[in-house]
Amino acid sequence: MNRTQRVLAKMKENGLSQLIVCEPYAIKYLTGCWNDPLERMYALLLKQDGQQVLFANRLFNVPQMENEVVFYSDEDDPAALLASHIDPKQTLGVDKTFPARFLIPLIQKTGVQCVLGSQCVDEVRAIKDEEEKQLMIAVSLINDQVMEEASQYIKVGMSEKQIADFIGSRYLHYGCQGSSFPAIVSFEAHAADPHHEPDDTILQKGQLVLIDMGSRKNGYCSDMTRTFFTDTPDEKHLEIYELVRKANEKAISIIKPGVRLKEIDAAARDLITEAGYGPYFNHRLGHFIGQTDHEQGDVSSVNENPVKPGMIFSIEPGIYLPDEFGVRIEDLVMVTEEGCQLLNHIDKNWKIVGRSALII
Amino acid sequence: MNRTQRVLAKMKENGLSQLIVCEPYAIKYLTGCWNDPLERMYALLLKQDGQQVLFANRLFNVPQMENEVVFYSDEDDPAALLASHIDPKQTLGVDKTFPARFLIPLIQKTGVQCVLGSQCVDEVRAIKDEEEKQLMIAVSLINDQVMEEASQYIKVGMSEKQIADFIGSRYLHYGCQGSSFPAIVSFEAHAADPHHEPDDTILQKGQLVLIDMGSRKNGYCSDMTRTFFTDTPDEKHLEIYELVRKANEKAISIIKPGVRLKEIDAAARDLITEAGYGPYFNHRLGHFIGQTDHEQGDVSSVNENPVKPGMIFSIEPGIYLPDEFGVRIEDLVMVTEEGCQLLNHIDKNWKIVGRSALII
Repeated sequence: MNRTQRVLAKMKENGLSQLIVCEPYAIKYLTGCWNDPLERMYALLLKQDGQQVLFANRLFNVPQMENEVVFYSDEDDPAALLASHIDPKQTLGVDKTFPARFLIPLIQKTGVQCVLGSQCVDEVRAIKDEEEKQLMIAVSLINDQVMEEASQYIKVGMSEKQIADFIGSRYLHYGCQGSSFPAIVSFEAHAADPHHEPDDTILQKGQLVLIDMGSRKNGYCSDMTRTFFTDTPDEKHLEIYELVRKANEKAISIIKPGVRLKEIDAAARDLITEAGYGPYFNHRLGHFIGQTDHEQGDVSSVNENPVKPGMIFSIEPGIYLPDEFGVRIEDLVMVTEEGCQLLNHIDKNWKIVGRSALII
Repeated sequence: MNRTQRVLAKMKENGLSQLIVCEPYAIKYLTGCWNDPLERMYALLLKQDGQQVLFANRLFNVPQMENEVVFYSDEDDPAALLASHIDPKQTLGVDKTFPARFLIPLIQKTGVQCVLGSQCVDEVRAIKDEEEKQLMIAVSLINDQVMEEASQYIKVGMSEKQIADFIGSRYLHYGCQGSSFPAIVSFEAHAADPHHEPDDTILQKGQLVLIDMGSRKNGYCSDMTRTFFTDTPDEKHLEIYELVRKANEKAISIIKPGVRLKEIDAAARDLITEAGYGPYFNHRLGHFIGQTDHEQGDVSSVNENPVKPGMIFSIEPGIYLPDEFGVRIEDLVMVTEEGCQLLNHIDKNWKIVGRSALII
């Protein structure tokens, strides 16, 4: 079954004969056509009877395609065009991102009953097909390479921004279309904020360096975190590092089809909680990834869904001690028939980098 | 009347007793509180009876405020919280950007009748108050200054990107929080694309340089375009330049309270059309501006609304000759009681810049 056929099957499971898809990456996934519509309407109507209609502004870039395309101009009422294509007597599945500016007129014009329908696409997108797996493997190999280069580039005396800029330039060198999110480079106490933005702070001898980075190539995203030392870590730093490393490895070790995502979260979280650091691991264990750095789906304490072959998500336990330091270690994993395949290969044993000071 | 009171008055005009505001800049405008909620719910419920409730995730940054604040966590159902605060028997005004992920559950839970209600906020935001006028004047003065510096910086031999980078660095120098949109720097044929992105193309002697740029400071945006020559223009270049300049000045000359926005568009467009270049002026004459570079409201052939004191918008006629060149001249204007005040002061007579080649 192709992608659209798989979405139609999900619609059938959900009792839906018609579905509006409007998330631009979802439309790209199903048609190959990419546009960022901003405030304009961009919607793909899928019907069980096989009809597929793309609604696009004439200003958009729409290649020749098999789907029927309804073009409209800025003077037209796109919600009215959409309304004329749906069956008002059948429940309509609606993309969770469809804005009120189109949804309310659509309901006013047709009286159609609406339910959220994005899961029909999201659940299909969560299972990567062969083409997507190869792209995810390739973009993650580049991330490995650039992380290795960054670890050799780091020197005491450099700023966080300088290291982040280096990473960005190396992504371009390897043919990436830039980063999948702004790289996080955090020294010591800054690493206690999971989302710290790199600034002009200078690396001091003995501080740790947390790097969370990902690139985008051929439409797919990588994402990895490593935490390096610049000198032999003291007892507390080492304790936290080893705990996070074990939590990462423990979680990865239990991944196989059928295991629930919350069980994977628990495998890491329980280790950290038992050691007394539970309150300092204050985010979910991971997120799904693909065309965007964060796709629908996560590895969290409330996700009951079982793992299936073809899913790709991050495993990223962390411990954040306010005003002291933080450690996070993150890999992407791809679920296989028997277990999982790691997409990142950079060693996770603790490591000293940048021992020599920067010579200016 | 303060801002919220003015929105409540608009709600009354529109027969609305309750309104959901969710556009982040609209919430900032009414509460002073800024968050980028991404996929999470962030909503301000305004009621005629004076109740004002802000719904915010606990992860958001919400200062002490007079409004009632309902905090929720990622485990909560924010649409249910919102549903419990609205009156299902009264029509609910809804922000045009409110996404289906919250709107559909809200309708399912309450059965409330929804209509689009953003105009109640947009029409208030379109009339700048004294504080906003001062911020718009100040940020436009910086834009004048940086445009003047850019015109002196330009040299034959430079790339488009280099000039764009210079503009960005000067904005930072003057305390701006960066650009309000990525600066457009286009040489000669590139200027025939109104939205060209600066690249590594090198400026050749005799080419024209179009610069469209704006900065953001204290939450408000500037925006201006000038087109410079690098040598005495030939007859055709001069004809087009003078036509665009006259269209800009003609439109500005008729602005005063009561004139319809479409009449202002026509004033510029008619001049260009009469000279035979109508098809090459392929966009509206201007857009409203304030907290974002493009706010609701425009100066276009279909906008029947009359101009009111306090409105601020751009006047930016352009002529784009494919594969040849393009010219655009843009100013921001603020409508006064008698006419309008120009917020940009850079001379619009044709000018030669960068005559000397770059010495590398």
